[in-house]
Amino acid sequence: MPVMRPKEAHMNANPKFLAATAHVDEAAIKPLPNSRKVHVGNLKVPMREVSQSDTPDMFGGEKNPPVYVYDCSGPYTDPAAKIDIRSGLPALREPWILARNDTELLTQPSSRFGKERLADPKLAELRFNLKRNPRKGKSNVSQMHYARKGIITPEMEFIAIRENLERERYIESLKAGGKTGAKMLELMMRQHRGESFGAAIPDLITPEFVRSEVARGRAIIPANINHPESEPMIIGRNFLVKINANIGNSAVSSGIGEEVEKMTWSIRWGGDTVMDLSTGKHIHETREWIIRNSPVPIGTVPIYQALEKVDGKAEDLTWEIYRDTLIEQAEQGVDYFTIHAGVLLRYVPMTATRMTGIVSRGGSIMAKWCLAHHKESFLYTHFEDICAIMKAYDVSFSLGDGLRPGSGYDANDEAQLAELRTLGELTQIAWKHDVQVMIEGPGHVPMQLIKENMDIQLKECHEAPFYTLGPLTTDIAPGYDHITSAIGAAQIGWYGTAMLCYVTPKEHLGLPNKKDVKDGIMAYKIAAHAADLAKGHPGAQIRDNAVSKARFEFRWADQFNLGLDPDTAKDFHDETLPKDSMKVAHFCSMCGPHFCSMKITQDVRDYVEKGMQEKSIEFVKKGAEIYQKQ
Amino acid sequence: MPVMRPKEAHMNANPKFLAATAHVDEAAIKPLPNSRKVHVGNLKVPMREVSQSDTPDMFGGEKNPPVYVYDCSGPYTDPAAKIDIRSGLPALREPWILARNDTELLTQPSSRFGKERLADPKLAELRFNLKRNPRKGKSNVSQMHYARKGIITPEMEFIAIRENLERERYIESLKAGGKTGAKMLELMMRQHRGESFGAAIPDLITPEFVRSEVARGRAIIPANINHPESEPMIIGRNFLVKINANIGNSAVSSGIGEEVEKMTWSIRWGGDTVMDLSTGKHIHETREWIIRNSPVPIGTVPIYQALEKVDGKAEDLTWEIYRDTLIEQAEQGVDYFTIHAGVLLRYVPMTATRMTGIVSRGGSIMAKWCLAHHKESFLYTHFEDICAIMKAYDVSFSLGDGLRPGSGYDANDEAQLAELRTLGELTQIAWKHDVQVMIEGPGHVPMQLIKENMDIQLKECHEAPFYTLGPLTTDIAPGYDHITSAIGAAQIGWYGTAMLCYVTPKEHLGLPNKKDVKDGIMAYKIAAHAADLAKGHPGAQIRDNAVSKARFEFRWADQFNLGLDPDTAKDFHDETLPKDSMKVAHFCSMCGPHFCSMKITQDVRDYVEKGMQEKSIEFVKKGAEIYQKQ
Repeated sequence: MPVMRPKEAHMNANPKFLAATAHVDEAAIKPLPNSRKVHVGNLKVPMREVSQSDTPDMFGGEKNPPVYVYDCSGPYTDPAAKIDIRSGLPALREPWILARNDTELLTQPSSRFGKERLADPKLAELRFNLKRNPRKGKSNVSQMHYARKGIITPEMEFIAIRENLERERYIESLKAGGKTGAKMLELMMRQHRGESFGAAIPDLITPEFVRSEVARGRAIIPANINHPESEPMIIGRNFLVKINANIGNSAVSSGIGEEVEKMTWSIRWGGDTVMDLSTGKHIHETREWIIRNSPVPIGTVPIYQALEKVDGKAEDLTWEIYRDTLIEQAEQGVDYFTIHAGVLLRYVPMTATRMTGIVSRGGSIMAKWCLAHHKESFLYTHFEDICAIMKAYDVSFSLGDGLRPGSGYDANDEAQLAELRTLGELTQIAWKHDVQVMIEGPGHVPMQLIKENMDIQLKECHEAPFYTLGPLTTDIAPGYDHITSAIGAAQIGWYGTAMLCYVTPKEHLGLPNKKDVKDGIMAYKIAAHAADLAKGHPGAQIRDNAVSKARFEFRWADQFNLGLDPDTAKDFHDETLPKDSMKVAHFCSMCGPHFCSMKITQDVRDYVEKGMQEKSIEFVKKGAEIYQKQ
Repeated sequence: MPVMRPKEAHMNANPKFLAATAHVDEAAIKPLPNSRKVHVGNLKVPMREVSQSDTPDMFGGEKNPPVYVYDCSGPYTDPAAKIDIRSGLPALREPWILARNDTELLTQPSSRFGKERLADPKLAELRFNLKRNPRKGKSNVSQMHYARKGIITPEMEFIAIRENLERERYIESLKAGGKTGAKMLELMMRQHRGESFGAAIPDLITPEFVRSEVARGRAIIPANINHPESEPMIIGRNFLVKINANIGNSAVSSGIGEEVEKMTWSIRWGGDTVMDLSTGKHIHETREWIIRNSPVPIGTVPIYQALEKVDGKAEDLTWEIYRDTLIEQAEQGVDYFTIHAGVLLRYVPMTATRMTGIVSRGGSIMAKWCLAHHKESFLYTHFEDICAIMKAYDVSFSLGDGLRPGSGYDANDEAQLAELRTLGELTQIAWKHDVQVMIEGPGHVPMQLIKENMDIQLKECHEAPFYTLGPLTTDIAPGYDHITSAIGAAQIGWYGTAMLCYVTPKEHLGLPNKKDVKDGIMAYKIAAHAADLAKGHPGAQIRDNAVSKARFEFRWADQFNLGLDPDTAKDFHDETLPKDSMKVAHFCSMCGPHFCSMKITQDVRDYVEKGMQEKSIEFVKKGAEIYQKQ
């Protein structure tokens, strides 16, 4: 079948990327408004502290406490940090890794490909200048391995502090505020009872709790020893729901600089991890730039690069080429690998009657390989060999759902569920090796089938964290799949998914640009947070309460700044009321100055409070009579 | 408390609206791509027929059937229709209304205000030139009244045809296609089993079913006899989930022309009803222009205009002024009135401890009135008088949730639920008069509390249709509340809400412009359709299946055209692959030409189909052995 080749117009549109002149995206390093980067405790756990203005006198005049927000943006939003992407980020975890004394520094990359790229003079102008050699575990260096030995690592301590978001200190400071503090405590800390569907979220995350969750496989800490720049984070059902942002060029679009920009842009807006799904040229070099500059875990799908190495011919793939790719990437510092080891030969024919066949790239590659060789996939037959590599660097498995549905029509079908059961078996094999595992999921699933999918995953995969793409709840809105899927993502996050892979508005249509990346992240931050609230995650409602209080008190700037995207909120407000004076106006453009329900409410409140209590009770009685007459 | 007055800059930005030169928005009358307006049956029920291209030979070469889409756009998207907004739309329902012979033509408006406006020479240049006098029922002219007498009206017949979307004919035409048809029948008609939570959706909507649902109050047909231009539609849990778009100016923004444009823009993208929430000048004239040009039912909140009539002083409102406003608007043709009759005096103090008090404008006006007069609201005490007006024009009640929560913090609280119970009592009073009723709902509700809200509504309001705003599932994303609320809207639609009131990205920040209106509608069309799918609404999946099939077969144009927004889908695709030749390319920019999972899937499918079946079975056995060894 002839395949047409598009003019690679967009590659030309990008100025050539050169290592010598690479620079950070200015938009990524602006601190967020009224926010301060704070570092908590000895481990210097980063959080964003959003200050608030005082309540106007007419509403009571109290001081409003700062709100602590989970912060994925690393040093980029810290004005005190000097950012030079040519040097990469500081190696935060290096002392912890060294202190464990269970790794060795290699003299050169172990992979054939890694050596070749390093030796190729043509790549010099593109190459990140890493002055550090790769490191390898002398034995198992996975966080799960330590956890099972009862060791609480600094990574685990860091995570415990990070997940709690200063809640204890917050409560203490409110309590110290006397009467005003008591009122504030009620307003800020009130939270509806959640429905967690069997999750076991404690009131306070302790380092020991982190350890125990990792030990039993219910959470993972993606933390490759060759990515010491990363700030530890955790993915598990009993922690805050996380989101992943996909970036990556393809053969027809974009270059290294653009992908690094997408990474820094992703983490600015709240991407907890980033997957580099590049399939074009210079995958290896692009990845190096991304990892060296990323404070969040990086995931990849190694089969994409392996396929490039055999010129796109799936049937030419071999275990040796794949193995070399795993080692190459593990020594660069990739924190988790998507591995489609559950695409078994006998499942492939199950997809022939589907509406949309196999839509996972990795899945389709492996399906083609299996059929071409009449053999079981090497990912499956060499699974224990893969485990051996994973544990030497602490790369986590993200067991890929190569047979996920590509349409609502194919949702929860035989192929999808058969693969899911196999992923459950592979999970147990990985755990035998103390290797961390999460499981990838849908896809496209109408709402009424989402819970079933989650429940089967929990059961068949023994509570290993679920990491789902969407799911898209309908297929009729190309151009809006960040929304079709945020609806499904919020639900599956509520039901138990630990990390949500974002979908951008460009899904099915093209590669996301920076605007699309931000739109996708916003939709998914909303879905993840809605899920945290619904599960009753302790403290999740603090930020909602703060926004609501600011909104009611016409503290416009606070409302913008406490939100997920202060820039857009402010711009929208400015569209109708552009003057600065309007930021302190006690009305908004929706109702105009003469007619404001918030204002009337305040009048009602004053009325009720100012001595009308007695009369009110009288009215209540009277009202009750009228009521009963009906 | 001093209130600042913004410069009314945006009013000046609009060119002055003049009746003599008013013209339709060109963007509203372009037919949608590859679509044809069809009129089904004697009643000429409009639908949009989207044609598809043939499947490429490599995928089997079959003809793809057209897809029928519910169409709210009226004559605007019909190239055969002559649109002149100065004349308004044809009075489609007039012969039906006349044939019932139970109305009288008035010699002039009955309301004092209506007469005054008509007589005011200063308004001549703004006024829509309606050559028709208002009409009034000699007795009860509500669709519910007819339904309860066992009469099937043309409106009910129209709706039955409209809701079925030619499904029966569709199946017949597929069956007639022989072997290809059988395959297509399977692909187009397959639908997952729904979970309807007790809804009773029949396989086929009959006129008698429409009648019975209206008779028992489980659905309403908003169809004022003075809005004969409207195309009948139904709101009820056993029908397709509908969406409403709010438009309307405020004191600081926009004019008549702009609001008419927002209406035609709303219905183009799928608004099933439109609410005119104007609060500024010329409310009466703006409304006339909107109704005369609207093929969808128009809702209003009459208390807004009544408040204007007393210069914004809630305490000066009287039953007489309100009554005059109801009659004024009923004689213009408003199809449903939001009436906040459940805000009882004794509920007002319940809001004093809320985070965000009373956020409904109507609710806060009535609360203020009640407290100022130490009396029960005139909406409540005169409820039966209101019923008498409603039934003389067939205006439906939309019983307003004046105490809906304005934050997640206040969700499902005492005030909200107390009011909801009162709305249930009022429903029964309205039904005693054979007046149609729907009930308005949240607001802001975290996910785990949504179902409870729906269940209480069904029980307390006796299955009267629920009409909900969102709900917003979190408060942390100002600028993205179309998404925070689409998540909640999809769920509550699934659980039983009959109509979803959209929320735009500007919610809480400013008045929506046309882009915001479209964004809000898209998010809500998605939510409503996701709900239909989840409920298992018969045939709901046809469009999804068609998009998925087009997507798999690289029929790019079909994928765009079958979607909710063909323009945006095409634009997004063009961003990466702008050439026309790329619209027939068998790859996309996500993977590029050499690496396409859809292509590989097709290879797999060919492989499996072309005589490899036997071998496959053998592999399955072999695979099964490997599998069992693990």
